[in-house]
Formats: sequence, C-alpha cells, structure tokens
Amino acid sequence: MKSQDDTIAAIITPIGEGGISVLRLSGSRAIEIAGLGFHGKQPLAVAESHTVHYGTYKNSEGELLDEVLATVFKNPHSYTGEDTVEISCHGSILVTQKILESLIQFGARMAEPGEFTKRAFLNGKMDLTQAEAVADLIKTSSDQSHKASLLQLKGSTSKAIHSIKDKLLNICSLVELELDFSEEGLQFIERKEIENRIQSAIDEINSLISSYNQGRVIRDGVKVVIYGKPNVGKSSLMNALLDQERAIVTHISGTTRDTIEESIHINGILYRLVDTAGIRDTDDIIEQEGINRTRLEIQEADVIIHLLDASTINLNEFNNEQESLIKLTGKDKQLLIVLNKIDLVPGGIDHLLTESVASNSYQVPIGISAKKRIGLDLLKNTLHSLTVNNELATQEGTVTITNLRHKDLLVTTCTALLNSLQSVRDSMSGEFIASDVRTALNSLGEITGEVTTDDILNNIFANFCIGK
Amino acid sequence: MKSQDDTIAAIITPIGEGGISVLRLSGSRAIEIAGLGFHGKQPLAVAESHTVHYGTYKNSEGELLDEVLATVFKNPHSYTGEDTVEISCHGSILVTQKILESLIQFGARMAEPGEFTKRAFLNGKMDLTQAEAVADLIKTSSDQSHKASLLQLKGSTSKAIHSIKDKLLNICSLVELELDFSEEGLQFIERKEIENRIQSAIDEINSLISSYNQGRVIRDGVKVVIYGKPNVGKSSLMNALLDQERAIVTHISGTTRDTIEESIHINGILYRLVDTAGIRDTDDIIEQEGINRTRLEIQEADVIIHLLDASTINLNEFNNEQESLIKLTGKDKQLLIVLNKIDLVPGGIDHLLTESVASNSYQVPIGISAKKRIGLDLLKNTLHSLTVNNELATQEGTVTITNLRHKDLLVTTCTALLNSLQSVRDSMSGEFIASDVRTALNSLGEITGEVTTDDILNNIFANFCIGK
Repeated sequence: MKSQDDTIAAIITPIGEGGISVLRLSGSRAIEIAGLGFHGKQPLAVAESHTVHYGTYKNSEGELLDEVLATVFKNPHSYTGEDTVEISCHGSILVTQKILESLIQFGARMAEPGEFTKRAFLNGKMDLTQAEAVADLIKTSSDQSHKASLLQLKGSTSKAIHSIKDKLLNICSLVELELDFSEEGLQFIERKEIENRIQSAIDEINSLISSYNQGRVIRDGVKVVIYGKPNVGKSSLMNALLDQERAIVTHISGTTRDTIEESIHINGILYRLVDTAGIRDTDDIIEQEGINRTRLEIQEADVIIHLLDASTINLNEFNNEQESLIKLTGKDKQLLIVLNKIDLVPGGIDHLLTESVASNSYQVPIGISAKKRIGLDLLKNTLHSLTVNNELATQEGTVTITNLRHKDLLVTTCTALLNSLQSVRDSMSGEFIASDVRTALNSLGEITGEVTTDDILNNIFANFCIGK
Repeated sequence: MKSQDDTIAAIITPIGEGGISVLRLSGSRAIEIAGLGFHGKQPLAVAESHTVHYGTYKNSEGELLDEVLATVFKNPHSYTGEDTVEISCHGSILVTQKILESLIQFGARMAEPGEFTKRAFLNGKMDLTQAEAVADLIKTSSDQSHKASLLQLKGSTSKAIHSIKDKLLNICSLVELELDFSEEGLQFIERKEIENRIQSAIDEINSLISSYNQGRVIRDGVKVVIYGKPNVGKSSLMNALLDQERAIVTHISGTTRDTIEESIHINGILYRLVDTAGIRDTDDIIEQEGINRTRLEIQEADVIIHLLDASTINLNEFNNEQESLIKLTGKDKQLLIVLNKIDLVPGGIDHLLTESVASNSYQVPIGISAKKRIGLDLLKNTLHSLTVNNELATQEGTVTITNLRHKDLLVTTCTALLNSLQSVRDSMSGEFIASDVRTALNSLGEITGEVTTDDILNNIFANFCIGK
C-alpha cells in the first residue's frame, strides 16, 4: 500500500479530446507542487480556498506546456479533505499527459484508482457506503440506478445501518453491564425484551437483504436473453425494441459473432438484450460451440425470451421446443414465451396459447409482430413486471441495498444475531449473547467502514477509475 | 447562424466515464440559468468572479441530479468574455447529460461546435489565428505540433502578419495622401522607395509561405507508405519501428484488411506508417482492387519506403522493381529504398547499392535487418532528414505557417503585391498601386480575422469539437 502522506496527482476527466481536461493534485504538498509549474499573477501559495487563477504551466525545463486555470481548495474544504489544486488545461491528450508527467517530476505521485475517494473516506469526508456510491454514480446508466446511487451517496444506507447498530449497541451495553454486576445478580433488561429487540433488528436486516434483489436490478440492470431458432425474428425483435427506444446506452459487439448485446430502458431500468445463436438442429462440433455459448448466456440471464414463429409452428413442435428449453434452463429462470409474426396467422394464436404446456407452467405466452410493431408495449410491460416490483424503492426515506458486499455483510450480521437469539432462548450466559451481538456489530461496521482493513479498502477502491 | 445573444451550454470535457465532467454556460443569462439548478450556501448571483461553490444540482422538477461545484467567471474575465458558469459534476455520462438537458430546459441553448471560442473571437479575447491554434492544440499529437500551436496561440502568427500590415498601411497612406494632393503634384514618397518597401513585404510573405511545407509536417505529421512484395518484411519493419517507440499515439485499423496504419515519433514529429498490400504478381480482379488502394496510398504519401528482401534479390530484379515503382509514383515523391534481411547476406549489399539504378537517381539505399534490429536508427534519421529541416522553426521568435488557410491567403496577398509592384514599375497612377495594396491588406486581415464573413467563421469553427 502506497503512503497516505504522498501528494497524489491524476487526470480526473475522461481521457480524450475535448474543450478542457482537468488534473487534480491532493496532499499536503499539493499547492507547493502545483506552484512549481503554474505561473500566474500571484503565487498559488497566497491564493484563498475556492478561488480560480489564470496562468501558464511550464515544466521543470521552463518549457511552456499550456495556458491553464488553477483552482485551490484548502484542507479540510476539499473532496479529499486535503489541500487540493485542480488544473484545467486545453483538452488535448498530449498536453494533459505532459502536465501530469511534469507534476510527477515536481514531486507528486500518480494517484491509484479510487485514491482520491479513499482519502476522502480516510479523512472522514464520507463513509464507505458513500464512497462506493461515488463509483456506482459514475458508472450509472439508468434513471433508477442514478437515483439509488445518489440516495446512497447522501447517506441513506449508512443511516439505516446506524439505526440498527444503535439498537444493538443498546442491547450490548445492557447485557455487558449485567456481566459487570454479575456477582450482584442484577438484571437490567428482561430476557424477553432482549429477544424482542434482537428479533426486531433481524427483521430490519432481513428487509434490507430482501431489497437486494431489486437493488441489483436497479444497479446492474436486467439481462434478457432472446432465444430461438434461426429466422423466427430475433434480430427483428431486437431492432423493434431498440427503435422505440431513444436512450440506447451501449452498443456492445459480442466477443463472438454469435452474440449481440444491446440495451434499452423500460421505466428507468436498464435491460440488456442478448441475441443468441440458439440451439440448432445439428450435432456438428462447430455448432456445438454455439450451443455452449448459448447455454452460458442462459445461465447468466435474468429473463429468457423464447421466441417462436407463430406463422409456421404447430402445437406439437411448440410443446417440444418448450420442454427442451425447460431442460436447458431449469425451473429457476424467468421464462417468457413470445410468438412472433402473429400478423401472418389469420386465425390468431389462441389455440396455441390455451393448449400448450407453457400455459400451465409459465407466464402466459405473448403474441407479437416485430415487423408490424404489434404487442411490443405488452412485451415490455411484461418484462418489467417480471423483474421489478411495482413500487421501486428509490424514493427518499426508503433504503434499497444495491451492493453485493453490503448484502453479504447483512447476511453475516443476521447469522450472528440468530445465534444470539438462540443463546437468549437457551438461557445462556450474557457473555454468549453479547459476543454474538458484537460480531453482528462488527459486520455492520464493515459496511460503513468503521471497521475495516487494508484488504477491504484495496478491494473496494481497485474497482474505481483512475482520477476518482 | 444562431443568435450571439443566447446563453449557450455544453459538456466541455471529453465524453466518457471519469472522476468528473464539466459543463460550461456562457452568455448574459449564464449565472441566472445556472442558478435555477444550483443550490448552494449562497445564490450564484452574489458570487464573486473566479470563485468555486459547492452545492446540489436539481432539475426543473426539483429532482436531485448530483452534488456539484459551480465556478463563476464574470464578463469580461472569462474564456468567452461573457458571464460564464462552469459546473463540475461526477464523471458519469448519464448524469452529465441530464444536467445539460436541464440547463437547456432552464433557458440555455446547446452550444455549436467551437461556439465558445467563436464568442471569444467575436468579443476580442483572441484573433482568428489564435482561435485556430486552440483547435490545433487540442488535436495535437506530437511535441513539435504542440509547440507550434502554443506559439500561434500566444500570437506569433498574428504578430508577423501585423508587422507586414503596418508596413503596407504606411505605403498605402502615403500613396493615398498624394492622391488627395494630386492637383498640387506633390510626391510624398519616391517611387523607388515604394518599390523597395513592397518588395520587402513580398520577401517576408514568401518566407512565411515557404515555411508552410515544414509547418504542415509539424502540424499533420508525415505519411510514410511502406511498399513491397509479400514476405519482404513489411510488418516486421512496422513492428521493429514501433517497438523502439514508446509514444505510440494512435492505432488505426485500416478500413480494409489490406492497410494498417501506426504512428511513431521521430524527434517530436509524427510519422504515420502505412503498410500496404503492395503490387502483386497477378491480374486477378480482386487483387487489382488491392493495387488501386496501394496507388491511392502512394498518391497521398509524403515518403514511400520501398522495402526489398536483400537475401533473395538480384540486381536485375532490383532495377526492375524500382523502375516500375518510379512509374507508379512519379518523380515528385520522396522515395527511400530499404533492403531488409541484410543479416542473411554474408557478402553484404554493397554491390547492389553501387550498381543499381537507384543509387543514381534517388536517396542512397539503406540496408537493415528488422528482425535483428540493424540499421533502424539510420532509417529513422534518414526519414527525418528527408522531411524536416535541420532547424525546426518552433522556437519563440520564429514563425512557421502551419495552417493551409493562412498559406492560401498569403499567396493571395503576394499576388496582389506583385501587381502593385508592377504598377509602380509601369509608373501607373497611385490609384492602381493603392488598390492592390488594399487588396493585399484585406487578405492579411482575413488571416487574423479583422476582415471576415459569417461563411469564413462558420467554416473555421465547424471543425472544432463541441464544448470548445
């Protein structure tokens, strides 16, 4: 682990050509080091906090690198809580890198990924859930994940954790007080009351844990694999859904030619649509590779759309296809059967829907025409209702756990509390109760970062981008 | 053309994920509009110029979009010369775009490409050559182009133009004064002296025009096409040159599989190396397509490296190859003959070098081994000396014209001055002399932007990026 005493520097805007780029220096020598390159009307050393200064930037050889603006933030009134200088230069990749190199030469160290935020955490500017919210906010790609990460940044998760912690601390101190006076045989709190309070904490924690399913969907979106034979209209369906959707976030070409991934938003949630090769009617070895890939995609899917051609399929084939897919996916996946090209079926598809095996065991199949844009809204609404609760918990006041680390620690907390509950019920000594409650408190403290180790911090901040 | 009175807004950092993104608002309503979304300790309206303020940003529906910093610059002390607010938010694509949308909703207009710089020009913060230098600086990809654009940004080109203009204005006013007093037959300046002064201006302009060849190389780099049969080691040569070179700027995959472009720096100049399919020994139609592409690359090349396999070639073949290449390229291209794999020729290649046609008409052929890294420095130095003068004119005090628009206007200026010179020599009336000198002055004024039209401005600023 690098020293926290170093003054660190990084380019904090995205790398590329633009109007401006910004570099940040943070640490006790930030103003001094920036002042070695910056030449303005007055030295940065005498600048007040939160003021901007125009000047030139020259490297150690006196070579002019750019005309810049330097902004001074004095500790503790900065993002990191340390003295900070931000240098804004022309948005040239070369110029920005030269200024960074020069700052390193003047005595700064390259900041590691997330190091500015790590320092903000270590200097008490934010707790760990807020630091994690910063990373989530930067990567956010949907309205709902945006809201959730902002709430977390403002401390909603911390507040919920602290509220539980306070209750547990209260139990702990009462029980431990009894232990201090154990020779007198005093009891400060009824066993039944302890039981109730622990149970109440467990309920709150379980409610947070169960919010994670929604939280994950909010934060990471929903993976929808479109599965079907060639020519049933998988690409048309992808295009039809994308066409209706202006806010396409990403266009990721698959690592193989067989997989295409596109993203759409439905009610502020990101849906990542994956077009697969499907399982083909061949035992060819090369084709087998495609099947394996499809199997992998299906394993990672939140929802599988099984797309069929309504104009050519018969009941028998329909049932066969579904049975083989059920074998492939298992019963724990959300499966949505969609019949395409219903515009080509004059008699409608009701006979298929009522007589198929699917109508018994799965979501009612949906009839659409990707080409004629029929049934797409129903499909989108069904996708949404399959994956998202009616009331999305991204309102102020409600807390949704979006982070797997938090959820795992909540589960650990819960286990410890269940143990302590058992100890109460078994009329064990207060020591056992207190010990388990302490373990629970420890896990909660890991969530907010009151209890932490270098390893935990390094794991968390390694996922940040450079410059944050 | 959009109104100059609008308050304009744009994201001014590169688009992408990063620590922060910055948006800029410029115009008379900048502080008011930013204030509608920004909520800090005190309203932006009372903030002093060049101060930074922490707060939240909410859209018109009161929805929190981010925690931000807002920096206020009051006219005329800003980049554009207008009231300006810069909003720095978390570096999320979604968040940044939402804030931009909200600023538009609050009454700003999306800035057009280059519009901030255009306003800086229109408000007299910089002249047109300096505005153009901003765009060059952002796109700069080599040390020398960096230096050249900074010099231009600091006004080196303007200064040279103004110096010539002053001389011409002086001539003009004397000649025109004579015209006013023509009835008295007064002569304020000797005809010979006018001739000398115009000639001196022409010399200065010609010197600027002739600097453009170097200027173009400095600004845009040198295109080097590597030409040769399959298996002579074209790719090995590319890799060997790239290997030695840490500062690879771009890796552009060709639009066709036949062309690969890579960039290296030699002494601060960018060399774009293009690997071609070469002319193959076939009349196949598909192969013909490859030949056409190679021909196009060669037409655009500054230097052609003709690469041959020293281990297999004989003198006859060597001469044939070169004659056919000379036919292909014409005589006006820089041609560099390079013999690869000299490590496989125990007897050396001196006999080829001395007896070939190349040694008579071209640069002396160079022997290398791409694999064994022999002769690469010689090759690079030769490339450099073929394209760059010994003394690069990117020192303070010297002026190099890097911009084709400037060069073309200098040529126009020169033509007008040659006309006026002829008028003097032909003892024509002062009216003719003055008229041509005025034309020359007009062209010079177009360079700095003292004389301009909407069309000229639109052409120039259309090449800027959004946010500059």
